[in-house]
Amino acid sequence: MTKALRISIDAMGGDHGPSVVVPGAALALERHPDMRFMMFGEEALVRPLLDERPALARATEFRHAAVSVKMDDKPSQALRVGRYKSSMWLALQAVRDGEAQACVSAGNTGALMAMSMFCLKTMAQVERPAIAAIWPTVRGESIVLDVGASIGADASHYVNLAVLGAAMARIVFDVERPTVGILNVGREEIKGIEAVKEASRMLREAQFPHLAYHGFVEGDDIGKGTVDVVVTEGFTGNIALKTAEGTAKQIGAYLKAAMSRTLMAKIGYLFAKGAFDALKAKMDPSRVNGGVFLGLEGAVIKSHGGADEKGIAAAIDIAYDMAHYDLMRTIREMLEQTPAVPPG
Amino acid sequence: MTKALRISIDAMGGDHGPSVVVPGAALALERHPDMRFMMFGEEALVRPLLDERPALARATEFRHAAVSVKMDDKPSQALRVGRYKSSMWLALQAVRDGEAQACVSAGNTGALMAMSMFCLKTMAQVERPAIAAIWPTVRGESIVLDVGASIGADASHYVNLAVLGAAMARIVFDVERPTVGILNVGREEIKGIEAVKEASRMLREAQFPHLAYHGFVEGDDIGKGTVDVVVTEGFTGNIALKTAEGTAKQIGAYLKAAMSRTLMAKIGYLFAKGAFDALKAKMDPSRVNGGVFLGLEGAVIKSHGGADEKGIAAAIDIAYDMAHYDLMRTIREMLEQTPAVPPG
Repeated sequence: MTKALRISIDAMGGDHGPSVVVPGAALALERHPDMRFMMFGEEALVRPLLDERPALARATEFRHAAVSVKMDDKPSQALRVGRYKSSMWLALQAVRDGEAQACVSAGNTGALMAMSMFCLKTMAQVERPAIAAIWPTVRGESIVLDVGASIGADASHYVNLAVLGAAMARIVFDVERPTVGILNVGREEIKGIEAVKEASRMLREAQFPHLAYHGFVEGDDIGKGTVDVVVTEGFTGNIALKTAEGTAKQIGAYLKAAMSRTLMAKIGYLFAKGAFDALKAKMDPSRVNGGVFLGLEGAVIKSHGGADEKGIAAAIDIAYDMAHYDLMRTIREMLEQTPAVPPG
Repeated sequence: MTKALRISIDAMGGDHGPSVVVPGAALALERHPDMRFMMFGEEALVRPLLDERPALARATEFRHAAVSVKMDDKPSQALRVGRYKSSMWLALQAVRDGEAQACVSAGNTGALMAMSMFCLKTMAQVERPAIAAIWPTVRGESIVLDVGASIGADASHYVNLAVLGAAMARIVFDVERPTVGILNVGREEIKGIEAVKEASRMLREAQFPHLAYHGFVEGDDIGKGTVDVVVTEGFTGNIALKTAEGTAKQIGAYLKAAMSRTLMAKIGYLFAKGAFDALKAKMDPSRVNGGVFLGLEGAVIKSHGGADEKGIAAAIDIAYDMAHYDLMRTIREMLEQTPAVPPG
């Protein structure tokens, strides 16, 4: 029998801290009873919540952490105060030391990225780590990266992003050769900024065994699910992600207003409630919660800070998949296969 | 009595050409019976459509144009073939020569922008023209620019965009001091690319009489309607716009699927049909169709290429407002008020 998978959890992260992180872990454990946890946090707050959940308590090794990184700490502040002793740092350290195979935190993104880079280090072949989001589409799901780890990209960083995203797609979508597109303002090869055009040429020539380069895609291709992996730099990716979230909320608000405006609409709503609930579940951001940090020497999953316990469980599910199917090995293999393409 | 407003129309633009442009103009004329048109296109195609609509024919001065710019012509191609003689060029020339106060075309964006810059010229105080979109929000509408005229921006171009957008907002939303935000990856002043940070500082210090600078906004603020004007550079703006369009379509598809899945849902749909129709109208892209070219020595409205006659009419409505409330004068006044802010 193989050794059980261990996920290390920063119990103090997120807007609601242990009160949703611990129940979230319990929920994830129900779905993957073979999973084990290492949990880091303030003992007085976390232990009672564990004690209420005997199955979770049995599956968890808890360790006290005296310091918690705050949601509004700047990365430098978090590093100064939290290095070596915060729940966030210790959860990452467990991955670094091989005690756990993936780390989950709902703590603040900047701090988690800074600590991840400091504690786990960036992979040698990778310029800068990226954050990948799983994006629901009409065809299922796609991976979009970078959604905000760093700003700006040259051609080789775009190629890195394509390789990292494809490695994740192989695991998440279980396809041998995921399709990859670069986000641009048009599909024609002459459009867009120089870095994007050069990266496109490099990816077209590279002929990766595990990456099918599709070409440029546009903003509306993301929701269509045109490709498995959408590559963009962090500034644009972050704005695209938040714009889509905003649009979904906006339409939800329209829909709610429309369904309560007339008596007929209210009656219609009652009949169609099951359908509306299904739609709501489909649009529920907690369903696909979890940004994956890619390009680090270890798997780190960032849950949305405002996530509820379902959201935390979804992030842990992703961590489980990343560990179970060995994301790190897949990434290393794919980076080794990356042909050296001379730029320009 | 003041002289009637004249809008010049490229009858050949768009995926459907005169068959939707002419009926679209007729629809717009019903809403603004005082409006007059100049229409340019192939006589054999346009004249019969005008003859079928006597009211429109009376309000329209038609001129034959031997050449039509194709939807897939590259800008350079369009200029080579269509300069001086295409329906697109002639419609712009009518604005340049003062025969019309605004121009509407559903032709291809790159060609229309290239011809506009060539024929009308960019305003002296403006680096590069921009395309502004009217974006529906939960609070009403906002203006987002640049959604794709040019790629990349330095700080002074961001300030230009803010002034151009605010001028348009004064007319479209009838507010004296529109609120303006710069799109960024966070609301804090330390976040984002350098150009965006510097532009923010410049706008904060400038104290425009007709522009209330709000600070940074994020992607989800667009749909919330946090500010009247959202400023971003063309690459990110184009991707944000198309991502939002894609998300709206995606949710529309989810909703349609949900409402036809069960008998109960279908019954519910029948009861709530009025509400769904209202929602559909609200999400209808033709309702706010029309990208406004800003920063040129003349008002140009670009209709979506795939627009139907309602979409064309909406674009003409915008042109009417721009001409009626004298967008060009408002822009010139605001540019004159722009204090010289030393960069850096």
